[in-house]
Amino acid sequence: MKGNLIIISSPSGGGKGTLIREILRTVPDIGYSVSYTTRKMRDGEVDGKDYIFVSEEKFRELIENGEFLEYATVHGNFYGTSVAQVQKEIAGERDIILEIDVQGASAVLKNLPEAVSIFILPPSFERLRERLIKRATEDLDDLALRLRNSFDEVKRFDEFKYAVINDDLETAANQLATIIIAERLNHTRQMTAIQCILDSFDD
Amino acid sequence: MKGNLIIISSPSGGGKGTLIREILRTVPDIGYSVSYTTRKMRDGEVDGKDYIFVSEEKFRELIENGEFLEYATVHGNFYGTSVAQVQKEIAGERDIILEIDVQGASAVLKNLPEAVSIFILPPSFERLRERLIKRATEDLDDLALRLRNSFDEVKRFDEFKYAVINDDLETAANQLATIIIAERLNHTRQMTAIQCILDSFDD
Repeated sequence: MKGNLIIISSPSGGGKGTLIREILRTVPDIGYSVSYTTRKMRDGEVDGKDYIFVSEEKFRELIENGEFLEYATVHGNFYGTSVAQVQKEIAGERDIILEIDVQGASAVLKNLPEAVSIFILPPSFERLRERLIKRATEDLDDLALRLRNSFDEVKRFDEFKYAVINDDLETAANQLATIIIAERLNHTRQMTAIQCILDSFDD
Repeated sequence: MKGNLIIISSPSGGGKGTLIREILRTVPDIGYSVSYTTRKMRDGEVDGKDYIFVSEEKFRELIENGEFLEYATVHGNFYGTSVAQVQKEIAGERDIILEIDVQGASAVLKNLPEAVSIFILPPSFERLRERLIKRATEDLDDLALRLRNSFDEVKRFDEFKYAVINDDLETAANQLATIIIAERLNHTRQMTAIQCILDSFDD
């Protein structure tokens, strides 16, 4: 038996970070795949926990060494997922969450179509704009560009198996947890238990 | 948007009847597809609610008229699923549960691979034997035959997407509900809502 790789993606400002923290707090037997990035650390972020923050030089070296399941540039920064970490986690019975942008999710799903993919959507573009302004960690100059990118990303919802609309945080977190628990009931996850039942047959 | 067809199957004595009654009581927006059968009505069963009980002559007439999505014989009795009823139910937003034997499930899944298929397993064959003896609506003579049939059916678990082991009723009912709710979050079920979000983009 092995864990599921749970791919969670959303346009920026979709609120997936908060949702994932809630899932890690409430759902048992689940871990988080920490991505590498070259972007600047934001206030409150912890190196090695939120991301592994590296220089562009180091990132290029990791690419050369084939260390990434996927990598991509978003708004001029590199983001990458370590092959080794994902393999180590799903070899056990724990699920692992991969928080990743839409391009990256698309690349991982090509390699691992059995992954559980979930797309988090904002309830509307008006609400997405408000969230981006409220966060405002980047210049507001590129707000229009970000919204346009988000629109293009939302159009790709059908590359994901599940869609969760993040209107109310509690509802969305419950929906996310429901998907994760249901996917553990997939027959492939229950092979060992079912073999025990078959072995109990006394011919 | 349309509802999901939820196929629930188990070997006899697997306890799916009780579980389904629990789901119909606790999960909103879900109905039950009543099958036709030629078997005798059991104590407590209601014609038109548990099954539509018909003569073998009538059943053969319905087959002739192409009224069944699938039909099968189990222990010498006919069981069949009405095309019309299933189509009517899933055209709305309601899910519909189809309680069906393993042969029948297999036939429906060939025609409707997008159906959500769930296999209910007994926790062991010892427990299955106890349940069959406790129910004892049929001669106990064919108990050994039933158990052998059940064994052959359990081996077909991998034809179903999900597997639920019915050890504790409450746990199994919760797992069943979790699967049904999670499948409503499939992106194909959320097309209309996502289109509204896309339309909210103010270019």
